[in-house]
Amino acid sequence: MKICWFNEHRLGVVADGRVVDVTDALKALPAPSYPRTTGDLVVANLPQLRAEIERLQPTAASHPVDSVRFLSPVAQPGKIIGVPVNYQAHVEEANRDVAIFTNRYTGGVKEQGLFLKANSSLIGCSDAVKITMPERLTHHEIELAAIIGKKVSNVSKEEALSCIAGYAIALDMTVRGPEDRSLRKSLDTYSVLGPWLVTADEIADPQKLDLHLTVNGETRQITNSSQMIMYIAEQIEWASSFYTLYPGDVIMTGTCEGVGPVVPGDVMHATIESVGDMRVRVEAAGA
Amino acid sequence: MKICWFNEHRLGVVADGRVVDVTDALKALPAPSYPRTTGDLVVANLPQLRAEIERLQPTAASHPVDSVRFLSPVAQPGKIIGVPVNYQAHVEEANRDVAIFTNRYTGGVKEQGLFLKANSSLIGCSDAVKITMPERLTHHEIELAAIIGKKVSNVSKEEALSCIAGYAIALDMTVRGPEDRSLRKSLDTYSVLGPWLVTADEIADPQKLDLHLTVNGETRQITNSSQMIMYIAEQIEWASSFYTLYPGDVIMTGTCEGVGPVVPGDVMHATIESVGDMRVRVEAAGA
Repeated sequence: MKICWFNEHRLGVVADGRVVDVTDALKALPAPSYPRTTGDLVVANLPQLRAEIERLQPTAASHPVDSVRFLSPVAQPGKIIGVPVNYQAHVEEANRDVAIFTNRYTGGVKEQGLFLKANSSLIGCSDAVKITMPERLTHHEIELAAIIGKKVSNVSKEEALSCIAGYAIALDMTVRGPEDRSLRKSLDTYSVLGPWLVTADEIADPQKLDLHLTVNGETRQITNSSQMIMYIAEQIEWASSFYTLYPGDVIMTGTCEGVGPVVPGDVMHATIESVGDMRVRVEAAGA
Repeated sequence: MKICWFNEHRLGVVADGRVVDVTDALKALPAPSYPRTTGDLVVANLPQLRAEIERLQPTAASHPVDSVRFLSPVAQPGKIIGVPVNYQAHVEEANRDVAIFTNRYTGGVKEQGLFLKANSSLIGCSDAVKITMPERLTHHEIELAAIIGKKVSNVSKEEALSCIAGYAIALDMTVRGPEDRSLRKSLDTYSVLGPWLVTADEIADPQKLDLHLTVNGETRQITNSSQMIMYIAEQIEWASSFYTLYPGDVIMTGTCEGVGPVVPGDVMHATIESVGDMRVRVEAAGA
């Protein structure tokens, strides 16, 4: 099942090129709570939500996919986690150009450690990436995003994939410079998630997916998730040894070689096999 | 006004050694919303909440301060931001011992950049810091926390202090090791905030406050916020040039010299002038 948020915070399910409006399924969920937090409400309650979506889908109104505006498919992630240097050819390109990629970070993925991106940086694919620091390079990084479905800590890699609610395409946008990754990757609009969440049952093997990113029609990044240095199951085992993962937490599982700059006016087209594809505009701040 | 969350998510106001239960004031707030986010509900609606608290306070039930369990005074922060190397004497102690503090981080505060701590690491002062990686050093870092009260971006340092809702004491607990700060500072229970939020009107000058931390009665850290390298107004200007700040975002404004290890059984006692004081236990995981 492909679940999305669209237009003015409508809930949708995507099928046959159409977005079916199943917003009424939200009535089956518990009320939003405060001050207690339980993770993203939709992701935390996905099993009962799916049943309700299936009940509503045959008779609900629908829109062509091309006619709607997609918001982030996870509305309220608890945290957005990034995995650095997780494809060998990207490690090599970064090592070739430390002036751009900075020499602050050395060592393999386990030594560098997971980083965080601010939740406030998150947008859906119909919003534009806004360049607020035009004097610096902004780089695209296409990544497979895994969305956690359960509260877990110290989970084993054997159990880890069963904790995933679904997958999406992520663009881990990054401003280059000397500062901590968790700052440079957290500018407003610098975390793109979309176009929808594909539930985990539709992905036979998340480590056998083609990834492809073009900018203005020219291929920049192309790989297969089999090329990850640390596989997703081990990422979850490792992450959950440091902190508890909650429903709606997002893991951006690392990017491949071909990372490069974008400028206002560019259009990125990101595709991940079995997940979908999305076009994301790059605009000047204030545009 | 000193506002707190206590016991089973009760809202309190602290006065004359007692915690007055003003939970009914929450009825004056908008309902929690989903999927839209607007920042922490209490902090975002502080003016109307204060009026309601003042109305209820004279007749509400109260408890001695020592008899309640304090939760984090910010229930749902959007992001928790840290400022590295912001006291000169701490910079010098870190440079003297790169084997412990790691040599990944060099340069001044602006070059190192702000970091993030996971929201899932946040506890109040009545919870214990849990040591889940006993094979590594865990360090205490006392910090003055500034809690953002308004949605702002690109705010000037002249306007910055007017964006602060209040202050609290923070313990930026840190596991030492080679990994990214945003991982090592994000273990569950490694962000302590308490005991309450003191509204900004009660702090005449946040850059003239004594800070003091003892472990088992022995002084470890002692300084005055006047010793910060980058003052809080400039921190907010700088942070808001990268990302939008929202009501409830927390800035931990940096720690001073005397950072050192804690082990299960230790009790940290943190005091900040005009804010308050709190005792925080350190326990083994599973204790």
